[in-house]
Amino acid sequence: MSSKKVDLSELSKLYAELGGELKPFEKFSGKIDVGYKVVYEKRITEVDVAFFGLVSGDLNPLHFDEELASRTKFGGRVVHGALTTSLVSAALARLPGIPVALEVYFKYTSPVRIGDVVRVEGVVTEKERENRFKVSVKCLVGERVVAEGYAKVLIW
Amino acid sequence: MSSKKVDLSELSKLYAELGGELKPFEKFSGKIDVGYKVVYEKRITEVDVAFFGLVSGDLNPLHFDEELASRTKFGGRVVHGALTTSLVSAALARLPGIPVALEVYFKYTSPVRIGDVVRVEGVVTEKERENRFKVSVKCLVGERVVAEGYAKVLIW
Repeated sequence: MSSKKVDLSELSKLYAELGGELKPFEKFSGKIDVGYKVVYEKRITEVDVAFFGLVSGDLNPLHFDEELASRTKFGGRVVHGALTTSLVSAALARLPGIPVALEVYFKYTSPVRIGDVVRVEGVVTEKERENRFKVSVKCLVGERVVAEGYAKVLIW
Repeated sequence: MSSKKVDLSELSKLYAELGGELKPFEKFSGKIDVGYKVVYEKRITEVDVAFFGLVSGDLNPLHFDEELASRTKFGGRVVHGALTTSLVSAALARLPGIPVALEVYFKYTSPVRIGDVVRVEGVVTEKERENRFKVSVKCLVGERVVAEGYAKVLIW
């Protein structure tokens, strides 16, 4: 299907050249239990919105057309909600072991602008079985909550 | 911050060359009400997993390392759950008007492999206010449900 080969290190280089923030994939340490905390943050830039738009097929002009977006209640372009909360998946992937997301719930409470640093703060609130945990999560830009909810995660 | 300019049409070309499926952003027609249906599908390829990994920072080896992934219960690499359900955001963005996602809930029920075509099927199940709707959604690969849940959407 593809005429060129997908090379993650080549694409990482391009991504960084286009202003993307490359995050090393570093696992968190410690033993997961109720009270365990995770923090993860990443700047969302122009290239993220473009890549996410292509991957999902969500080329909603709210994310790409400043002129149109400026005439909405947002008053300008915003980041896809699902792009913002993709950072939750990245945060949970950093849990010790092999984490698998079973369920997610998110409420989008405030717009995220291109260039904003989104910080994910999570805390394990329930241990449902030996290797299943509920994690409450918030996504913040500065002190402003932009999304909140929870995820259920299985650790292999 | 970026040394190169982000050009969506240039990136679209690269994305297609790398095997990505370019989806035109075409709005659905008709009047949204209870019973309104949406269908949207897209093939998820290697470049999608790479782009999504860079954008989110989720470089979990379950998605990138065939050798490691083959030793898990998945028996091989799988697509990020949040990438699969990003197609729901793309489906809802195609609703008439200017749709804004307020809330989402997804349960991940079965793995998605690189190369699978994911079909999103949604149906409006509740009209909460004049311009607020609840949409039940399923993501399928063939007849197999890989994720299901709902979204609440505001239409501007």
